[in-house]
Amino acid sequence: MTEPSELLYLRIARQLERQISDEVLHVGERLPSVRMLSRQQGISVSTALQAYAHLESKGLIMARPQSGYYVRFSPGMAPERPALSKPATSPINRNVDALIFEVFSNLTDPRITRFSLSVPAPELLPVARLKKAMMQALNDTPGNGTCYEEVVGNLELRRQIARWAMHWNGKLSEEDLITTSGAMNAIAYGLMALTKPGDLVAVESPCYFGTLRLLHSLGLKVLELPTHPDEGISIPDLKKALDIHPVKLCLFVTNFGNPLGHCMSDEAKRELVQLLAERNLPLIEDDLYGDVWFGKRRPMSCKSFDEAGLVLWCGSISKTLAPGFRVGWIAPGKFFDSVKRLKMYHSITSASPEQAAIGSFLATGNYDRHLRGLREVLQANCLQYIRCIREYFPEGTRVTHPQGGFILWVELDQRLDTHLLYQAAIRQRISIAPGAMFSMQPRYQNCMRLSYGMPWTPALEKALQKLGTLAKAMLLSQTVE
Amino acid sequence: MTEPSELLYLRIARQLERQISDEVLHVGERLPSVRMLSRQQGISVSTALQAYAHLESKGLIMARPQSGYYVRFSPGMAPERPALSKPATSPINRNVDALIFEVFSNLTDPRITRFSLSVPAPELLPVARLKKAMMQALNDTPGNGTCYEEVVGNLELRRQIARWAMHWNGKLSEEDLITTSGAMNAIAYGLMALTKPGDLVAVESPCYFGTLRLLHSLGLKVLELPTHPDEGISIPDLKKALDIHPVKLCLFVTNFGNPLGHCMSDEAKRELVQLLAERNLPLIEDDLYGDVWFGKRRPMSCKSFDEAGLVLWCGSISKTLAPGFRVGWIAPGKFFDSVKRLKMYHSITSASPEQAAIGSFLATGNYDRHLRGLREVLQANCLQYIRCIREYFPEGTRVTHPQGGFILWVELDQRLDTHLLYQAAIRQRISIAPGAMFSMQPRYQNCMRLSYGMPWTPALEKALQKLGTLAKAMLLSQTVE
Repeated sequence: MTEPSELLYLRIARQLERQISDEVLHVGERLPSVRMLSRQQGISVSTALQAYAHLESKGLIMARPQSGYYVRFSPGMAPERPALSKPATSPINRNVDALIFEVFSNLTDPRITRFSLSVPAPELLPVARLKKAMMQALNDTPGNGTCYEEVVGNLELRRQIARWAMHWNGKLSEEDLITTSGAMNAIAYGLMALTKPGDLVAVESPCYFGTLRLLHSLGLKVLELPTHPDEGISIPDLKKALDIHPVKLCLFVTNFGNPLGHCMSDEAKRELVQLLAERNLPLIEDDLYGDVWFGKRRPMSCKSFDEAGLVLWCGSISKTLAPGFRVGWIAPGKFFDSVKRLKMYHSITSASPEQAAIGSFLATGNYDRHLRGLREVLQANCLQYIRCIREYFPEGTRVTHPQGGFILWVELDQRLDTHLLYQAAIRQRISIAPGAMFSMQPRYQNCMRLSYGMPWTPALEKALQKLGTLAKAMLLSQTVE
Repeated sequence: MTEPSELLYLRIARQLERQISDEVLHVGERLPSVRMLSRQQGISVSTALQAYAHLESKGLIMARPQSGYYVRFSPGMAPERPALSKPATSPINRNVDALIFEVFSNLTDPRITRFSLSVPAPELLPVARLKKAMMQALNDTPGNGTCYEEVVGNLELRRQIARWAMHWNGKLSEEDLITTSGAMNAIAYGLMALTKPGDLVAVESPCYFGTLRLLHSLGLKVLELPTHPDEGISIPDLKKALDIHPVKLCLFVTNFGNPLGHCMSDEAKRELVQLLAERNLPLIEDDLYGDVWFGKRRPMSCKSFDEAGLVLWCGSISKTLAPGFRVGWIAPGKFFDSVKRLKMYHSITSASPEQAAIGSFLATGNYDRHLRGLREVLQANCLQYIRCIREYFPEGTRVTHPQGGFILWVELDQRLDTHLLYQAAIRQRISIAPGAMFSMQPRYQNCMRLSYGMPWTPALEKALQKLGTLAKAMLLSQTVE
C-alpha cells in the first residue's frame, strides 16, 4: 500500500499548509510564483502546480487571474470547537420522530442541497467499477445470484473483511463475521440478541438519530453520556454512570462518530474495553466511518483490544462504496450464535449478488485505491466547509474539526433554533439536520449536522453562504425582538 | 393471458387423466397407440405424442420400448390424506432449535438430495432472464444501483406487485406496499409492529418452523390451531380459541401452507376476515406460495376481502424467481406507518439493484410466462412423489394432495420417529425435514415434510425409494423389538 504522503507534490503542499497554519504565511499574502516555488524546492513546474492545485482544492489558497496564488484561509483561524457535551445524567426518552420525518420526507426534489444526508454522493463512488464487479458476480455465483447464500454470508466477502481488519489490528477470520443488510441492521441484531425491552443502553451525546429511534422502537431506555467532540465519551464519566445506572450494554461510534466526528484514541479504546470487561458488559461498536480517516493510518477499533469477546464490531460499505447495495457486517464475539440465529429468523440470508460483488471488489485492491481518493476529497471538503462557516456564519459559531468521516457538527448561538433555521433554509432548497434530532433530551436546539460528502462546487459554497446569512438574520431579528 | 387449458394436447391429456382417475383405464392397462389416439380424437400424431409425454411427466403413464404406453399410476390410488390436526388447545412453547440446526447445518455436501429445503432449484428458475434484468437495472438506476432506494422500496416494483394483485382480486396501489428482504422479513416487521413480548399469536398446526422460531425469538407465545390439510384452519375452532385465549393476532399461510399445503377456500377467507374484523384482530397473511397454483386461477387472499385494513399481506419472489435476491413485500393495511418506520430503523432501505430488476421483470410479462412453466413442472412432480410414496413407503402412509406450492406433508405409522429416519437417511445423503420441527408441542414425530421443488429425475425416484425402504426397515425392526 503506497501512502499518498510519499508523493512529492503532497509533501510540498503539506509544508506550505503548515506554514499557513503557523501563520508564517498570512491570509491575503501572495505565495511564491509557480516558477519560483519550482526553483526553491528543486521540483518541476508541473509538480509545483500540482501542490498549489491541492491547496486550492482544500480552500486554503486561491488563484487570482494574472496575479498568482494568495493565502485564503488558515486552519489556525478555524472557529472554535464545541465543548464536551453535558446531557442529563439520568435517562430521558423524548420522541423526536416528527422532526425527523419533517426533515427526511422533504428530500425528493433533486435541486435541494442535501447537507442533511450523511451519505456519499454517487459522484464520489467508483460506480463503474462496482457495476463491473456486479456483472462478474452475476456470472460467477451459483444460479447467477438467484440462490440463497449461507446464513453467515458470502465466504469471499467475509474473508476480505477479515483481511482488511489488519489495517486496524483486528484479529478476525471469516468465521468471526456475519454479513448484514448494512450496519444499522447489524446493530439491530446485536441489540435484539443482548437486550429485552426496558433495558438501559449507554450511547454518546449527541447521538445519531437512527440509533436513538432503533433503541426506542425496541423498547430500550437510553442513557446519553458526555462526549467530547475530539475524543468521544469520557471514560471517567462512563465509570460514574455505570456505578449509578443498571446499564445493560454500550453502543458507541468509536471512529469519526455521527454527528460529533470524534475519534477515541487507541489508549481510550483500550481503557474502555478493559472497563467493560471488568463489568462483563458488552459493547456494540459502530465502526461505520473508520475507513474514512484523514490521518496517517486507519484508527484502531475497540475490537482490536477485545479479549473477552464482548465487543460486537459493526461495519459496512454504505459510507465508502454503495449505500444502495446494503452490505454490512458484524463480528459479534461470543454472541455469534445468537446473532446468526436472529439473522436467519428475520431475513434468512442477505442478497447474494451484492455480497459477491463487494467481496471481489475488496479482493482486487480497488477498495484501497478508491479510499485514498475519497479521503482526499473529503478532507479538502471539510476544510472548505470550515472556512465557509468562519466566513459566512454568525460570529461565535463553533464547529467540530473531525479527522475523518464526512460530517460536521455546528453549534450556533444559544438563542438560535435550528428547527426554525431548517424551515427557513428548506424554502431556499437547502436541507440541514437540526440538532434536536440527535438527542432524546431537549438539547442541541442551537446545533446542526452538515454533511460534506459531495463534490465541492461554487454552488455548495453559495448554499453555505445562504445558510450563514439566514442564521445571521434570524439572530438579528431575535435580538431586535 | 392464455390459459394452458386452451392447448389441445393438454385437453386430451386431461381427459385421459380423468379416465385413469375414475379407473376407466386401469393401472397396467395398455393405452391406445399414438396413431390410434390421433385418429380417435381427430388430432395430429404430434399432438397425441405431446399428450402422452405430458402424462408421462406426471408419472401417470409410462412408455415401454417397442410396446406402447401403459397406465402406471392413478391419482385415485393415492395414499389417504392426513386428518385434521389436533394440537393442544393451550399454548405450549417447546424449543426445537437443536433439531432444526441438526437438519440445516448438514446441507453443504452438494451430493445430498435436499427434500428438506422448500426452495426452488435453480434449474426451475429463469436465471438467464433475471441476469439480463439485473444488468439492465444496474444501467438504469441512479448511481448504477449504489444509491439508497426510498424507504418504502422501488416504485416500479411496488407498481408491478399492485398490478399483479389483480390476479387475486387485490385492490392495491403502489402506495399500499413496502418492500422487504424476503417474506420472513415482512412477517418480522409485522410482528414487531403489532406485538410485545408475552403476547399470544395464533398459527396453523403444523406450522413452518422458521415462523415458530421467529415468534419464539420475539418472546411471543404461540397458540397452534387445528388445521385441515386441504382447507387450512377451521373457523369454528378459531372462534372457540379466540373466546378462551387472549390472542393478539393471527399469522396464517392462506394459500398452499407450509408444510400442509392447504388452501383456504374463498368463502373461508371471507369468513375469517369478517370474524377478525368483528374482534378488531389483525391478521398477518403469509401468501408466499400463492402464485404457484395448480388449478384454474390464482386463489384469492384474505387481503381480497379486507375492508378494515387489518390484514398485513406478505409475499415475495423467493419461491418463484430468486431466493437469493431477497425481494419481498408487505401491504400492511392500517399499520403502514409503523411497518415503514420499523423497516427504516432496522435496515434503512432494501438493496436497490434486485428491486429494480424484479420490477422490470414483472413489467415485461416474463413472470406470467415463467410461472406457467413452473406450475406445470411442480404439479407433475407432485404426482410423481405421491406415486412413489404409494409405491415405496410403508402401507398406511398418508400424504397431502396440495393444489399448489411445492411441499408434501407425509404422515407415517405412529411408531415411526422421523428424527431417527432423518439420521438414517442423511447417512445415505438424503435430507428430510422431520415433523417435530413444525410444532412447539411434542407432536408430528411420525411426520415429515418433503419438497418437490426440483427437476424430476430417476435419481430423485431412487432417493424416494431409499427413503421408503428405510422407513419400512425401521418399522419392521420396531415390530420385532
